[in-house]
Amino acid sequence: MNTRQLIDLAQQLRVDSVRASAAAGSGHPTSSMSAADLMAVLMARHLRYDFERPHHPGNDRFVLSKGHASPLLYAAYKAAGAINETELLTFRKLGSRLEGHPTPQRLPWVETATGSLGQGLPVGVGIALAGKRLDHTGYRVWVLCGDSELAEGSIWEAAEHAGYEHLDNLITIIDVNRLGQRGPTRHGHDLDAYARRFQAFGWHTVEIDGHDVDAIDRAYAEAESTAGQPTAIIARTLKGKGVASVQDREGLHGKPLPDADEAIAELGGVHDRRVEVPSPPAARMLHAVRSGHLDLPRYELGDKAATRDAYGQALAALGTARGDIVVLDGEVSDSTRAEFFAKEHPDRFFECYIAEQQLVATAVGMAARGWVPYASTFAAFLTRAYDFVRMAAISGSGINLVGSHAGVSIGQDGPSQMGLEDLAMFRAMHGATVLYPCDANQTAKLVGTMAGLEGIRYLRTSRGDTPVIYSPTEEFPVGGSKVLRASGKDRLTLVAAGVTVHEALAAAESLDREGIRARVIDLYSVKPVDRTTLREAAEDTGCLITVEDHREEGGIGDAVLDAFLDGRPVPRLVRLAVRTMPGSATPAEQLHAAGIDAESIAAAARLLVEMAIVP
Amino acid sequence: MNTRQLIDLAQQLRVDSVRASAAAGSGHPTSSMSAADLMAVLMARHLRYDFERPHHPGNDRFVLSKGHASPLLYAAYKAAGAINETELLTFRKLGSRLEGHPTPQRLPWVETATGSLGQGLPVGVGIALAGKRLDHTGYRVWVLCGDSELAEGSIWEAAEHAGYEHLDNLITIIDVNRLGQRGPTRHGHDLDAYARRFQAFGWHTVEIDGHDVDAIDRAYAEAESTAGQPTAIIARTLKGKGVASVQDREGLHGKPLPDADEAIAELGGVHDRRVEVPSPPAARMLHAVRSGHLDLPRYELGDKAATRDAYGQALAALGTARGDIVVLDGEVSDSTRAEFFAKEHPDRFFECYIAEQQLVATAVGMAARGWVPYASTFAAFLTRAYDFVRMAAISGSGINLVGSHAGVSIGQDGPSQMGLEDLAMFRAMHGATVLYPCDANQTAKLVGTMAGLEGIRYLRTSRGDTPVIYSPTEEFPVGGSKVLRASGKDRLTLVAAGVTVHEALAAAESLDREGIRARVIDLYSVKPVDRTTLREAAEDTGCLITVEDHREEGGIGDAVLDAFLDGRPVPRLVRLAVRTMPGSATPAEQLHAAGIDAESIAAAARLLVEMAIVP
Repeated sequence: MNTRQLIDLAQQLRVDSVRASAAAGSGHPTSSMSAADLMAVLMARHLRYDFERPHHPGNDRFVLSKGHASPLLYAAYKAAGAINETELLTFRKLGSRLEGHPTPQRLPWVETATGSLGQGLPVGVGIALAGKRLDHTGYRVWVLCGDSELAEGSIWEAAEHAGYEHLDNLITIIDVNRLGQRGPTRHGHDLDAYARRFQAFGWHTVEIDGHDVDAIDRAYAEAESTAGQPTAIIARTLKGKGVASVQDREGLHGKPLPDADEAIAELGGVHDRRVEVPSPPAARMLHAVRSGHLDLPRYELGDKAATRDAYGQALAALGTARGDIVVLDGEVSDSTRAEFFAKEHPDRFFECYIAEQQLVATAVGMAARGWVPYASTFAAFLTRAYDFVRMAAISGSGINLVGSHAGVSIGQDGPSQMGLEDLAMFRAMHGATVLYPCDANQTAKLVGTMAGLEGIRYLRTSRGDTPVIYSPTEEFPVGGSKVLRASGKDRLTLVAAGVTVHEALAAAESLDREGIRARVIDLYSVKPVDRTTLREAAEDTGCLITVEDHREEGGIGDAVLDAFLDGRPVPRLVRLAVRTMPGSATPAEQLHAAGIDAESIAAAARLLVEMAIVP
Repeated sequence: MNTRQLIDLAQQLRVDSVRASAAAGSGHPTSSMSAADLMAVLMARHLRYDFERPHHPGNDRFVLSKGHASPLLYAAYKAAGAINETELLTFRKLGSRLEGHPTPQRLPWVETATGSLGQGLPVGVGIALAGKRLDHTGYRVWVLCGDSELAEGSIWEAAEHAGYEHLDNLITIIDVNRLGQRGPTRHGHDLDAYARRFQAFGWHTVEIDGHDVDAIDRAYAEAESTAGQPTAIIARTLKGKGVASVQDREGLHGKPLPDADEAIAELGGVHDRRVEVPSPPAARMLHAVRSGHLDLPRYELGDKAATRDAYGQALAALGTARGDIVVLDGEVSDSTRAEFFAKEHPDRFFECYIAEQQLVATAVGMAARGWVPYASTFAAFLTRAYDFVRMAAISGSGINLVGSHAGVSIGQDGPSQMGLEDLAMFRAMHGATVLYPCDANQTAKLVGTMAGLEGIRYLRTSRGDTPVIYSPTEEFPVGGSKVLRASGKDRLTLVAAGVTVHEALAAAESLDREGIRARVIDLYSVKPVDRTTLREAAEDTGCLITVEDHREEGGIGDAVLDAFLDGRPVPRLVRLAVRTMPGSATPAEQLHAAGIDAESIAAAARLLVEMAIVP
């Protein structure tokens, strides 16, 4: 395509953005129009992509970080022949693949769901890292960002990570259209302000007029030939470019154009030009599956081991069995024990430093490329990445997240280091699996199982040693539980998971001596829960006491209810959980102060008997 | 103090850090030792602080962003005479004020809880902004950061905010000791790497040897005299400085020294030198309470209005009534309607741009200075700041957070913009209040009530118009609910909040026509819940159907259980919530697809009658 044709293509992308938004009655045409020239040149001259084979390993990857500019993306798909005219005009309608913000769940050419700003670049860094250090198929990652989203700290976590890793296969295009949602951005059209920031983080930068197709073409070529550092192309643009009534004006964010027909005429009318996006060279996926034989660590019954240790050891074994396992950690691998994997498989270990958003984003990016990532940090610090987990769920991303140091039982470090809301946070996540093992063999088995699940999988590990109570041959299906004590005379049921399983067992033993028989269930699968076993316990004993090293809301106490939501009778429920703000103390003192140790559990059970709530 | 005395003081801080950690058997002495000189010079020469009057409005504010270096802080408190020898040695013990990471809940001189890295500077920016634009009492804010935590994006949100706001009352000291938890940081002792980054964000920087007390003194003086920009003092230090066996060595993070006695001898032995921290000049708090008469907006019964509109209007009225109300927004004030406040009270409105972590941190900082902040963005995007909310709860911070665009009922924008996990997230937060109004008058009243509560208060608002069903004179106590339909013949109870209240009312009406009487409860207070009313409904009707525009876990369906956790009989429970991943569609289509519209509710009730679950 020559300059004239590029300009025409850009105008068509604008027209189609206006048309799609007009048909929908909502959407972001003005934010699409600013980036139309940037997109046209990319499609026609630089992107290497086979729309028929979106999983082609050599394909470049494009991420629309400013996801609200979806009309532009869909207009480009139409120009490339990937979707047709009719589909374009289904934008934002019930059942359409063309959602308000693009998602890979619906469209095969979308790498990751965007729409929460500041996430496309971090995920793009994850993909680029996979390209450099894992795939080696030579693809480039192109990320189109808005200027507003550069206020998100996650952008600078990503910039730091990409600069440090010398990701010269990553090219970020910044559409500096000066206007955010409610008014001007902090830096307006001061391109230097953005360039200084990216340069400081080790990037090459190019500043251009984002409406000059030749300048764009040169900038892309410069980025492609830049070695050893990622490039940020900082493009001065006008929001609503091409239509005088909206161009560079405030108050027109996220609205269809006031007069679509007039705008279309001003932009040169409706056309159906096609762009030939060049295909990538032949390439082959490299993540070979190895032997397939998983030789998990085995722990002796009666020994003691921390579930975090079992996590690290199982992970290392999993890495030996499977070549597609990658591990990421947030600069605490000596605590999470991800270091065991790092030592055995350094080529598939990724240090993400103290940047939990980028930690999760890197996992999402690698999962998009077919790798199976495990990302770990303290459970408490995964709260930092909740929005990234949320968007990963929208992407349908298959990632394993592992939070260590769960609960008050970590001891002296105090509440800032205690994961106390993590079960609530992950339970509420669509399609997530939430696992919370209590012993080392169980942990090892679950680490292996996780790899084969769909969606977000969360594993919660503990800091201190706990007794090994399961044999290495025991199986732990997702959605299952283990009945650890049961008799025909059980008067109540203790439902626990993780550290509280051991407290519940001790409590049951002491209650037994007083003639109060208690069933004990290890609810290692917090989501989904084992409905059958919980219902049986409800029928047999009539009362469940849940015990958890977690806040009282959203955790195990709420999870058991999932078994009784079909209108059937609900057993009596008593909940023991962390109700106060802990300070520093030993693990045993913490469990006691929170009222979730064996003594507190037994006391609660006795009280229920005294009150005749339990027969 | 002269140079010799400063050096001696620094050595004492090291010795006391070693002693406290040795007594505790845990803690971070090496991370304390690297910053001892920086701390000694600050205390002796630059900080203006009255330890007897921590709330003195003229006091400088000190934030230990690297909260794990708490031994250093407590050693400094001892040197200042604020705590004694005996208390120092209670470090990390049950009941001690000296927790593993400092919290203002226990110690009056701590501004904000730290321990989750990358949060101290953002909160410091909030305090400095209060100093500049609200308090005007001339205090400085000193923040001591670690180098590892500069990987957190939140640091760069803070840097951007401070640079843009020209916060020359903010001085950040970076203790570049080269070593993180599990090994070297990305940039080691490359001070320039950090300087370039801060400069790019508009900061003045000074690079020094962090163990040269005279250089430190000069750097602080330079920072104090710098106008128009914040200063970052980037100090080269050695972790474990002063004790050869640990100095600048890996693998010694977060551990007491191997031989404390030997280390203390090497550091010059135990001393009890006192430092006279100069008091601040006289100053007066400026946030005068105005008339006190709150003239809330009033909406006519039967009219329609969005709860987000009522939020904005009530907030503007609250700002007129009270001079201590401040409002912050994440560049979406036209959507959240915080703009109504901004227009009337521009001096107390703070644009935080698209940086939700800094949004919450600014609120925490301002609350620490006695202001009453309301911070709003889309409910979905508050997930971005969950770790900040968590730490705010640990601080006991009194902040109001308002999430708009809750649920699938926002319509076409799709899942990335839908707050679907926010109730779960805030319910799990210790001491939080969670409110979810369904009409404009209720919203207005709750906005007023929130200001007087303790801890984290969350209000969930909706995008679309809903009918006004309450009179402007109705009261809505926290922990209450409203029974909107009731009769002696109710066969089941519909529990709803927000948009689903109106769906439940319509469903009840249609069921009524079929002879099925349903009670309807508006559960506007999701935490705490109205136990009395829910128990009454359970006794009267035996079955509760919860209906919520939220994920099925952690929201209203789980919240009702809070009324039945004392061992009493639990009613039958059926939960209608968002179970699938929504796409784009109209609000009505979304509610229907999620199975939470009137039709779906009525169908569920009918099914329960058919199944004879409901009599």
